[in-house]
Amino acid sequence: MLTLYDCATAPSPRRARILLAEKGVAYTAVNVDLRTGEQLTEAYRAINPLATVPALKLDESEGGVVLTDNAAIAAYVEARHPQPPLMGTTPAEKADIASWHWRCEFEGLMAIAEALRNSSPAMAHRALPGTANYEQIPALAERGLARLAVFFDTLEARLAGRDCVAGTGFSIADITAVVTVDFARVVRVKPGDQHVNLKRWRAEMARRPSMAM
Amino acid sequence: MLTLYDCATAPSPRRARILLAEKGVAYTAVNVDLRTGEQLTEAYRAINPLATVPALKLDESEGGVVLTDNAAIAAYVEARHPQPPLMGTTPAEKADIASWHWRCEFEGLMAIAEALRNSSPAMAHRALPGTANYEQIPALAERGLARLAVFFDTLEARLAGRDCVAGTGFSIADITAVVTVDFARVVRVKPGDQHVNLKRWRAEMARRPSMAM
Repeated sequence: MLTLYDCATAPSPRRARILLAEKGVAYTAVNVDLRTGEQLTEAYRAINPLATVPALKLDESEGGVVLTDNAAIAAYVEARHPQPPLMGTTPAEKADIASWHWRCEFEGLMAIAEALRNSSPAMAHRALPGTANYEQIPALAERGLARLAVFFDTLEARLAGRDCVAGTGFSIADITAVVTVDFARVVRVKPGDQHVNLKRWRAEMARRPSMAM
Repeated sequence: MLTLYDCATAPSPRRARILLAEKGVAYTAVNVDLRTGEQLTEAYRAINPLATVPALKLDESEGGVVLTDNAAIAAYVEARHPQPPLMGTTPAEKADIASWHWRCEFEGLMAIAEALRNSSPAMAHRALPGTANYEQIPALAERGLARLAVFFDTLEARLAGRDCVAGTGFSIADITAVVTVDFARVVRVKPGDQHVNLKRWRAEMARRPSMAM
């Protein structure tokens, strides 16, 4: 049985939860309390030295290895549980999904993280996740908000005439896009009246049980 | 025949060049002159709307699609030309390589980009690649240098007793790691006396003809 080190309120572990649900993979969840800094404790760093969630501990039959980030978790789950494919089937479709998955992460999630972590009093000295402390940079918080607005418009344009973010059907790009759009609430951003296609797509995504995870 | 939109001096297209060389895939190269801002011209944006290099134009038999970033290029090339595998074979190995590939990009290359783009007079208003202008943030340049130092130490620790960054042999993680370590020169950072394993690994990598690309 897999063990997922999880936190209900954070966006990164939500990506793993939705992925595992879409693949129908069972796991035991262990909550890591980010509010009290449990991820920075010696006990948790013995599990994941990066001091981040999610982490996924594999079965003893696979050496009990701990996957320490979403990149590892996605690659593992897609290879170990190929059905349904969430990273594409043809080379060109795999490319399209990888590209949009990357853009959702770099242009979307990272912009929110910049805006939140560089402005929230609760995250003083914690401008980046991980073991090292970094001071907040107010100008980076502002830039994050500007980039996030651009990303919402990018996603709106992309979804015109499309039911999914990339490829020919639901994929891991939709997962990261949903997590991004939903988590934008922490910096008071949500789809506006101009985001017609984005809202239509998000409403359609809500029909998938995994999205309640 | 593939067409690679390339620039000899930039790190991102070098990742694609090394990958294609390691796979033995032939292509026609088109130089995009980043010094004169050719990537921002209407002509180039008609090819890659992201206004970045590399971009890889597929054959007409695959619709002449243009892959607009390294994430897409890597996924395509690995699927279309599986031998030699550069993203792992077993699920656990794929996970290890994906994780380190991601870390080399986020913790390494991105740190250099932050340090360079937020300080170089030649990059005023160009703190991020792409079509939108963003002002430089001097504090982010400083943070990039701090993160880069951490990343060099991370890589040094990782390479103790190892011949490659991830998995059981040469992989795409080594490609991105080499490009990162080499490109750090633009912010006057290079492996120091304390980076014994990093230097050993880099010297070994130099034996691969692809690394001269």
